[in-house]
Amino acid sequence: MHHSRLAGFIIDCKTPDLEKAAEFWSAALGMELKPKEQESSPLYRQLMTGPDGLHIEVQQVSHESRVHLDIESDDIEAEVKRLEKLGAKRVQSIHTWCVMEAPTGQRFCVVRPQRTGIAAKENQRE
Amino acid sequence: MHHSRLAGFIIDCKTPDLEKAAEFWSAALGMELKPKEQESSPLYRQLMTGPDGLHIEVQQVSHESRVHLDIESDDIEAEVKRLEKLGAKRVQSIHTWCVMEAPTGQRFCVVRPQRTGIAAKENQRE
Repeated sequence: MHHSRLAGFIIDCKTPDLEKAAEFWSAALGMELKPKEQESSPLYRQLMTGPDGLHIEVQQVSHESRVHLDIESDDIEAEVKRLEKLGAKRVQSIHTWCVMEAPTGQRFCVVRPQRTGIAAKENQRE
Repeated sequence: MHHSRLAGFIIDCKTPDLEKAAEFWSAALGMELKPKEQESSPLYRQLMTGPDGLHIEVQQVSHESRVHLDIESDDIEAEVKRLEKLGAKRVQSIHTWCVMEAPTGQRFCVVRPQRTGIAAKENQRE
């Protein structure tokens, strides 16, 4: 039996200047940026939401700007299959995550656990 | 001095069948739907996120499907002005809220307080 839940969302920004984009969203949402030297990729800046907060990141992308949701799971393949049964489509696997498309058209990602406590939450509806 | 913070996000769905869209997102995210008879508009279905959770709704729209963020404030005009100084643009006022566009292109809304406790949070950076 696997677990999954909303991890948070990613603010995808089509911009040559990730720092400027991250500064805007940090100020707009009133959330400090995680120190740059703690980031594992130059394409992301994480917003600090507190220990129980959602995982929110500003990402530099080449496609049009948007906001996408992330679903975290301790078994990505099982979660992708569950979501396929609900009507979502598998778009692409990238590194450790899977990009999917909802029946209503939004792209979203199934990712490894981003926050603590995922085992307390189960999505078993199919 | 006004207050503002992230209220949550709206899953905008270009669909003739809001119920079906809401059922998908409810099952995908593992969040129950607020009873339909408690909804104040036929265009929205709210997801139940718990007392401290973000405000999440599925909305039937005529534009392309997307996800948009809401910023809640106890003074919408002051908040819109603050966000304009940060580089966002005012797009349209609708009912009680204001649609804005981020410098990075995403549309988002400034709305009246959706959750309790907003006075504890201030966004004063400009």
